[in-house]
Amino acid sequence: MDYADDSLVLHTDFYELNMMYTYWQQGISERNAVFECYFRDLPFGSGFAVFAGLEHAVDYLQHLRFTDSDLAYLKESTPYPQGFLDYLRDLKFTCTVRSAVEGDLVFNNEPMMQVEGPLAQAQLVETALLNILNYQTLVATKAARIRAVVGDDPLMEFGTRRAQETSAAIWGTRAAYIGGFNSTSNVRAGKLFGIPIAGTHAHALVQAYRDDYEAFKAYAEVNHDVTFLVDTYDTLRSGVPAAIKVAKEMGDKIDFQGVRIDSGDMAYISKRVRQQLDEAGFTQTKIVASNDLDENTIQNLKMQGAKIDIWGIGTKLITAYDHPALGAVYKLVSIEDESGKMVDTIKLSSNAEKVSTPGKKQVWRITRRSNGKSEGDFIARDEEEVAGQDELYMFHPSYPYINKTVKDFNARPVLQTIFDHGELVYQLPTLDAIRAFCLQSVDSLWDEYTRVLNPQEYPVDLSQQLWDDKMDLIKHVKVKVQKQQL
Amino acid sequence: MDYADDSLVLHTDFYELNMMYTYWQQGISERNAVFECYFRDLPFGSGFAVFAGLEHAVDYLQHLRFTDSDLAYLKESTPYPQGFLDYLRDLKFTCTVRSAVEGDLVFNNEPMMQVEGPLAQAQLVETALLNILNYQTLVATKAARIRAVVGDDPLMEFGTRRAQETSAAIWGTRAAYIGGFNSTSNVRAGKLFGIPIAGTHAHALVQAYRDDYEAFKAYAEVNHDVTFLVDTYDTLRSGVPAAIKVAKEMGDKIDFQGVRIDSGDMAYISKRVRQQLDEAGFTQTKIVASNDLDENTIQNLKMQGAKIDIWGIGTKLITAYDHPALGAVYKLVSIEDESGKMVDTIKLSSNAEKVSTPGKKQVWRITRRSNGKSEGDFIARDEEEVAGQDELYMFHPSYPYINKTVKDFNARPVLQTIFDHGELVYQLPTLDAIRAFCLQSVDSLWDEYTRVLNPQEYPVDLSQQLWDDKMDLIKHVKVKVQKQQL
Repeated sequence: MDYADDSLVLHTDFYELNMMYTYWQQGISERNAVFECYFRDLPFGSGFAVFAGLEHAVDYLQHLRFTDSDLAYLKESTPYPQGFLDYLRDLKFTCTVRSAVEGDLVFNNEPMMQVEGPLAQAQLVETALLNILNYQTLVATKAARIRAVVGDDPLMEFGTRRAQETSAAIWGTRAAYIGGFNSTSNVRAGKLFGIPIAGTHAHALVQAYRDDYEAFKAYAEVNHDVTFLVDTYDTLRSGVPAAIKVAKEMGDKIDFQGVRIDSGDMAYISKRVRQQLDEAGFTQTKIVASNDLDENTIQNLKMQGAKIDIWGIGTKLITAYDHPALGAVYKLVSIEDESGKMVDTIKLSSNAEKVSTPGKKQVWRITRRSNGKSEGDFIARDEEEVAGQDELYMFHPSYPYINKTVKDFNARPVLQTIFDHGELVYQLPTLDAIRAFCLQSVDSLWDEYTRVLNPQEYPVDLSQQLWDDKMDLIKHVKVKVQKQQL
Repeated sequence: MDYADDSLVLHTDFYELNMMYTYWQQGISERNAVFECYFRDLPFGSGFAVFAGLEHAVDYLQHLRFTDSDLAYLKESTPYPQGFLDYLRDLKFTCTVRSAVEGDLVFNNEPMMQVEGPLAQAQLVETALLNILNYQTLVATKAARIRAVVGDDPLMEFGTRRAQETSAAIWGTRAAYIGGFNSTSNVRAGKLFGIPIAGTHAHALVQAYRDDYEAFKAYAEVNHDVTFLVDTYDTLRSGVPAAIKVAKEMGDKIDFQGVRIDSGDMAYISKRVRQQLDEAGFTQTKIVASNDLDENTIQNLKMQGAKIDIWGIGTKLITAYDHPALGAVYKLVSIEDESGKMVDTIKLSSNAEKVSTPGKKQVWRITRRSNGKSEGDFIARDEEEVAGQDELYMFHPSYPYINKTVKDFNARPVLQTIFDHGELVYQLPTLDAIRAFCLQSVDSLWDEYTRVLNPQEYPVDLSQQLWDDKMDLIKHVKVKVQKQQL
């Protein structure tokens, strides 16, 4: 913790540097290469994912310079020669980056970010980009799933204390806001990103006064908008009655906005609390619940008729508890050969679904012209013309007999240019614009894709050319492996 | 991302500030208060946990000042009056902090950190401390469990790309090192903390050359110590034969340290790879495995006789995949009353195990004098004399009929003074000293507590006085709630 520069350029796996060094020594470090980032499985059994992390990724790439302290560390801890360290010192990021934009939908096995440029540079940034995109996309997706089950109920992000260290807390709550949350408890995230902040008091306040009534009274005397936490000692026998008593005594001097319950059987207790509030005339006072909630427990509580108006979500969201890693990878799909020609590359696997799809691509989001609803995603080689076609033949890349021909469609390219040869050419939208775009994007999906349990599989298809090229390259590599019989 | 100061003082829940404001307005902000941090359940079904996070917590507390930009943000986004903002501007951390030290063992329901000082300050730091300690303790514990099943095999931390954002990657790998890992792939963590860095190359290198042999050859020509990743196309038919061919051609020019396999059936493939290497005379070349491993899969592979020498662990460790949040809480246990006397406080719950234990405490680690092995932890009121006793009556706090009387014991206080009235009085140890202390601490436990599956429950007992005081306070609060019948 001695380095004031806090450079992120070494926030990378050591093997990236070792590969850069090899490329540099072998004279291929400046060859043009295309890497693509994608995940193989949608998290949480979800039918969709929400892309997030671009703003942090842009910030990382804009500041990608080896500092003096970085170079000094490498000099002392690696056998790299001075020439390579000089190369690193002079390195400027000159890649072209195309990416989904934050708040857009992304699906399994399609590129959500593409980095094209000198091999060594494009290699270097793999680790940090995955670190950022994997987590933020995961949380934005979780948040959108929670939004999908609560309708218009307010959602508050409460997870900082359970987040995996400090940057997860702030970038995670930003991702949650993108996915449809309304506020955060993290004041720093409010300051950094302009997210509305929310929260009233904890059990400690009640303990400090050793009495619900005394604590609520003290709180109400100095705050106008109050939500009382009522479960410190006994929700129904002490907490809610004390809240009501204080609210009646204070009258117009406060706005008795809500009570919060943080433990116990939420379905039962919320109904009893509602009854107590209503009988006292506080029919507009809201009930806030917070206790290890996620989309599954919320859906369940709603089905049981729980009287909960506002949801505070912590642990399960900020850690993506039931699926804490997205697993996106970053694969080389195309490289310049000795003659300067770009050639496709592939990674094989004994597991058919782990075979990468070669070639530089674009993802086209296909929607029905009549109603804007989703038909599926169509992945084509970058040079293929898709938007202008009259009809599109779409088939499942693993089960080609599942297919359809789409007419009267709109095709929107998902990957947009963010950096052009190292220069930022994308105007980062405001967070509220990103959030609105996300809500609109989710809305463009049929309900069958957004339902929380067992959604329909959204079509992510390859163009005929891409599919043919992939099959040819698999065959080519297999024959080569056979022939070598090293 | 516009704030160069990057202050962490607002890295807190909004309700902490609202409570501070209430305390300040009500004139009780400077009353002495004691908060304790503890978790209720050991993660992963583990029999023990390894405490980590103190160094980051110390850094946070040392820099706890409201900056100009923090105050400007609060002024524009909250209704706090200028007087309170002035109070925050002048706030200096003056609390006394006692804590377990990094690498020590901690157990459920015992304080691992204690903050004593002015109520408002001690309240403020709750969120960030939990954010830091929860995550780092979780990962150190996961790492120690992995260490417990691999014997002396080298363990490499590979998780950055799957970590939950950037600070989890670096603090997580530091926690893993404390728990017994040998190296990290994250170069920035190497630079910041002095952890040895490890890694050679990825699939991309092989893809860039579109051939195992060409890639390994290129790599070997510029690097002396080589470990080849052999599963890009076909491990047994292409990868390993190519590695062997290059190693034979290069002879003494390289040290053929290992091959890495990252996919497929590890038990089967590792045996076949071992056979191929041995037959070629490379009996000293190690096999490195990395593919969603954790203590459970490793134990399984070992039982199957897998020929794996070195383990690269990523996702499952850095996200604590099977239990991604520790769930530690921070509870007020004692506060100064109107008359200046310290009084115990409690938080009740319908769930008996969620009732907090009142009073300022010390945790005593009891070991048998003859062999240094663990007898259990004994939690006593801070003023109780434990170390000097001849015998100690230890009983289970929920099932008092489980009890024993211990003689000839050593009693070591787990909580050490870190800050004394705001002044750092603890000398942070080197990371290697912390790691060594952790290994030694785990070793002091009987095997029954360290086994990975269904360990024996380590005794965490309350002193008779503490237990009596807790029962009295529960009764007192219950009677009070009954009487009020608000």
